[in-house]
Amino acid sequence: MKAEIIAVGSELLTPDRLDTNSLYITGRLNRLGIAVERKTVVADEHQQLRDAFKESLSRADLVIATGGLGPTEDDLTREAISDTLGRKLALNHDVLRVIEARFRRLGRPMAERNARQAMVPEGASVLENSRGTAPGLWIETDGRVVILLPGPPHELQGIFVEQVESRLARLAGGVRLHARELRTVGVPESDLDERIAPIYKRYGDVQTTILAGLGEIQIHLRTWSKDAQAAELMLDEIVKQIALKLGESIFTVSGQSLEEIVAAELTKNRATIATAESCTGGLLAERLTRIPGSSSYFPGGVVCYSNELKTAWADVPVALIEARGAVSPEVAQALATGIRLRTGATIGMGITGIAGPGGGTPEKPVGLVYIALADAGGFKEHTGRFPADRERIRWFASQTALDMVRRYFLRTAQPQPSRSGGVQG
Amino acid sequence: MKAEIIAVGSELLTPDRLDTNSLYITGRLNRLGIAVERKTVVADEHQQLRDAFKESLSRADLVIATGGLGPTEDDLTREAISDTLGRKLALNHDVLRVIEARFRRLGRPMAERNARQAMVPEGASVLENSRGTAPGLWIETDGRVVILLPGPPHELQGIFVEQVESRLARLAGGVRLHARELRTVGVPESDLDERIAPIYKRYGDVQTTILAGLGEIQIHLRTWSKDAQAAELMLDEIVKQIALKLGESIFTVSGQSLEEIVAAELTKNRATIATAESCTGGLLAERLTRIPGSSSYFPGGVVCYSNELKTAWADVPVALIEARGAVSPEVAQALATGIRLRTGATIGMGITGIAGPGGGTPEKPVGLVYIALADAGGFKEHTGRFPADRERIRWFASQTALDMVRRYFLRTAQPQPSRSGGVQG
Repeated sequence: MKAEIIAVGSELLTPDRLDTNSLYITGRLNRLGIAVERKTVVADEHQQLRDAFKESLSRADLVIATGGLGPTEDDLTREAISDTLGRKLALNHDVLRVIEARFRRLGRPMAERNARQAMVPEGASVLENSRGTAPGLWIETDGRVVILLPGPPHELQGIFVEQVESRLARLAGGVRLHARELRTVGVPESDLDERIAPIYKRYGDVQTTILAGLGEIQIHLRTWSKDAQAAELMLDEIVKQIALKLGESIFTVSGQSLEEIVAAELTKNRATIATAESCTGGLLAERLTRIPGSSSYFPGGVVCYSNELKTAWADVPVALIEARGAVSPEVAQALATGIRLRTGATIGMGITGIAGPGGGTPEKPVGLVYIALADAGGFKEHTGRFPADRERIRWFASQTALDMVRRYFLRTAQPQPSRSGGVQG
Repeated sequence: MKAEIIAVGSELLTPDRLDTNSLYITGRLNRLGIAVERKTVVADEHQQLRDAFKESLSRADLVIATGGLGPTEDDLTREAISDTLGRKLALNHDVLRVIEARFRRLGRPMAERNARQAMVPEGASVLENSRGTAPGLWIETDGRVVILLPGPPHELQGIFVEQVESRLARLAGGVRLHARELRTVGVPESDLDERIAPIYKRYGDVQTTILAGLGEIQIHLRTWSKDAQAAELMLDEIVKQIALKLGESIFTVSGQSLEEIVAAELTKNRATIATAESCTGGLLAERLTRIPGSSSYFPGGVVCYSNELKTAWADVPVALIEARGAVSPEVAQALATGIRLRTGATIGMGITGIAGPGGGTPEKPVGLVYIALADAGGFKEHTGRFPADRERIRWFASQTALDMVRRYFLRTAQPQPSRSGGVQG
């Protein structure tokens, strides 16, 4: 089955707004083995809408249009599809009653124009909207299906899950998506692809996509089958082979975030972590606390931008800063050790570096960041050289710090002294 | 002039990737008075590409296609447009020499397939790419213009600015965009629109767009004219009238971020700021330090998730936490006052609240956040009730905190005691 998506809305043709609904719809369609072959963004304009419908219907088995179902005169999607298909548009009293009841429940008067949302083309079935007033519509025509959905994402997604998915599954005939999402830190993209391409190229039935994100690379494996067991076995086999090539660079095979993985390791090992950050300005603490329940492993951290506060809050010796400079491996280590002792945490993390754009020197250029992890037995230290802008330097540094914590727990089933001081990277 | 944009790339039809180049292109075209009437996303597939070109050329004066100009066999945009227009594709030796020189400069051997990027359709002019190997192409046909640009954003943007913009400006005939971008905090969207709609509706020549973002609303005013002075005067007039309605909720009329505005106020007033955060987990410190040079106004801050650290780092009395609870206006005030005294900063900010999803009670529900600002003379305190998820609760709290700092400086040209203790909001 081939699908096209039409996003309706003049605001989607400005520099400020993107159609993101199509990502959600594509994801759900792909799960049913339905590929999206074209996406179109078109204005709220009658003739243009008609043209877009006509063209898509000439090519695709399934056309999903989003937006333009609201109560105002700008909302023309219902009218356009009726005209395109030569169907009459008539007031549906059942739908009108549902809309009226919704307004009563909210204790608000229903403006007359809302009745427009109860207009239904001949022969269409109504897809009830439990989260808003505009219902979706399902229209069959010459063996093709047109689905209209409202633009607000939570309404669209509600209707899709509650009303659309099971109907489409019947049309799609029992094929289902099986997938894995591996994520890695620390291997460059070209290197990664070279190592794993010989593996995934052997599996013609599996679609492999490699996505380079900020400081991590995702490997998406997807296959469609009616035989769930065989598909899952095949995916397990590929993941196993990829794991042999990429080893512990892989931090998840099920699409979890690095923050989630680090949180799980800290929790499992009953460890706590404290942070002393300079150039990342609190980003590491912020990321550690994105996870619900993070108070169980994160007592706190300091952002010590000034040298005085590095001393006051993490006991970095004044003489050390004078001798080595605030941006130095020694100060990173002192920050990590100091905050660990101050808080009694299992692990202390220290970060100091030059986020730029100013402040770089030939010896210590913008993008140079020292990151240290201290435990009861010693410390590890990593030197990052990130050729990027301020925002990304800070992100890469926090990403590296989280990854150091993750790798730490790969070595220590339970928190133990690591005794591995010295520069790694 | 009417334009269409075609984004070429099978990866843009997956659930993982969006065409974002079209936003950049739309923004630049709009500046020249050129509207985008349709956007199409199509796979790297010869026939589908031809269809898309043919359709767009039947409607638009200008068609810009992005992507599919790389060296691999998947990259078919050059071939498709040549076929569509019935033009021969021939190797352009000048382009080939430029590509070869680029590889030499990088010290890398040039793979044979890169020569594909030197194939140029009959009659096309080459748009040099200073940041990559694939040049863009400018093709005129029957009074219409087709522009092909490579997909990587920095290459596309380089070619657009260096090669495309001036040519398009000549076609567009001297019309230019004049614009203002107002941003506000603290007024709900419906309320804001009600107050300012009577103003912007009086100016038919000015396109007004209201965009609700996370914790702020943007008002974009755009007008196109050959008469720069008249356009700028008219925009100033509208901004003045809107300012009368929205007052100090407006924090910029030129599209600056709230972080930039706060940084500018701190710098101008030679003030410094320190933070003591609980539920925001470092987000406020992180946002304050996004700005280059933030070390001049931000000595540092603490993230005190545990009650012990609230006492150890910001001198919040144990008895106060026991009596009022860690999430209370009193503890927010103590955090703000404590961190201010500890650091010697002009202003101290304290934040404590319940980011959820767990931890809420009927008296103190998820989304309740207390935010305090302390200076030498006293403190201000704000109670936020954010009905949202963890991520947005934290964002709204940091947004409110930054806005409190901004409004503080509206009252105090130079940092002065505020003596305004007590709950505001």
